[in-house]
Amino acid sequence: MDRLQQQVNFIREIDKVKKIIRQNYITDASRRENDAEHAWHAALMAVLLSEYSNEPVDTMKVVKMLLIHDLVEIDAGDSYAYDYAAQATAHQREVKAAERIFGMLPEDQQQEFRSLWDEFEEYETAEARFAHVMDNFQPLILNDASDGLSWREHQVKKENVMRRNAKVPSASEPIWNYMLKLVERNIEKGNICP
Amino acid sequence: MDRLQQQVNFIREIDKVKKIIRQNYITDASRRENDAEHAWHAALMAVLLSEYSNEPVDTMKVVKMLLIHDLVEIDAGDSYAYDYAAQATAHQREVKAAERIFGMLPEDQQQEFRSLWDEFEEYETAEARFAHVMDNFQPLILNDASDGLSWREHQVKKENVMRRNAKVPSASEPIWNYMLKLVERNIEKGNICP
Repeated sequence: MDRLQQQVNFIREIDKVKKIIRQNYITDASRRENDAEHAWHAALMAVLLSEYSNEPVDTMKVVKMLLIHDLVEIDAGDSYAYDYAAQATAHQREVKAAERIFGMLPEDQQQEFRSLWDEFEEYETAEARFAHVMDNFQPLILNDASDGLSWREHQVKKENVMRRNAKVPSASEPIWNYMLKLVERNIEKGNICP
Repeated sequence: MDRLQQQVNFIREIDKVKKIIRQNYITDASRRENDAEHAWHAALMAVLLSEYSNEPVDTMKVVKMLLIHDLVEIDAGDSYAYDYAAQATAHQREVKAAERIFGMLPEDQQQEFRSLWDEFEEYETAEARFAHVMDNFQPLILNDASDGLSWREHQVKKENVMRRNAKVPSASEPIWNYMLKLVERNIEKGNICP
């Protein structure tokens, strides 16, 4: 198949991520957010906030990771951060999805995207760690802005949020400190269970 | 104000772009697309397709431009590509919006983002030209996938599409050739008026 046509087929396929609905709401709490919106927001945050990474990062690599990190949810669905049953089986479903979805690309780009996604999932490089900080911080900002609607709906506890963000301090001390204050403020407001 | 808090305020403000609705539909034609989804899609396309730029481009710069290019529409609204009255006055409204929105950032990032947005608008560098190709090609792919629904609703003529994309051949010959075939196919289907 013509290379450009193959790329366009992929571009059409990933449009489906706009219909994968997350648990968190957009800031005005009028509706839940979808994966494409989340990826856009987190990628733009990486451009703005990479100065806060504890280690120097290749921002372009972080941005690429964030642009593609949730494409696997087209097949695997969104696994809510605090749904531990879904989280336990998510990776298996997502690997299968990565094979199909990235497999639509020409060989060189398939390898590049798969390797970026694997690196993000393995959580071992500075770029993967910082991309995860953005992936977590983005819904925290939106939940805070929407007066904790999603946290309240799911009766999220402080310990859940702490567990979810356990690796943030090793990736970004300043963002971790900001998160702690944000969480405390939302405990005081009754949005997060103490 | 604390630098990180200033950046978070900007991150919260730009969430509003998720409520700016465009004229084109997502691929399954179930609803129109919003600016955040469009920016995500176009930025990811730039990562995939920069090999087709006639001139070498700094892909990171193109991606940044695309991530922020429509933020001004939070204040200025979306100006439909084929609404020439709206297009004629858009830039003036958008400059005012750029001042307010990018003005929320710390001075150094305000200057960086404003300069990226100005460069995109001025359309004179290789990066600006290629970013515009992505900005135009993305809705073309979606309109084609949704059987031209948006074109049919607005009775778009071939000459409108040609005028809109007049600068594409100077930025990407292969994508221009692809676009021409896509347009011809949609004329045959009655989606675009000849």
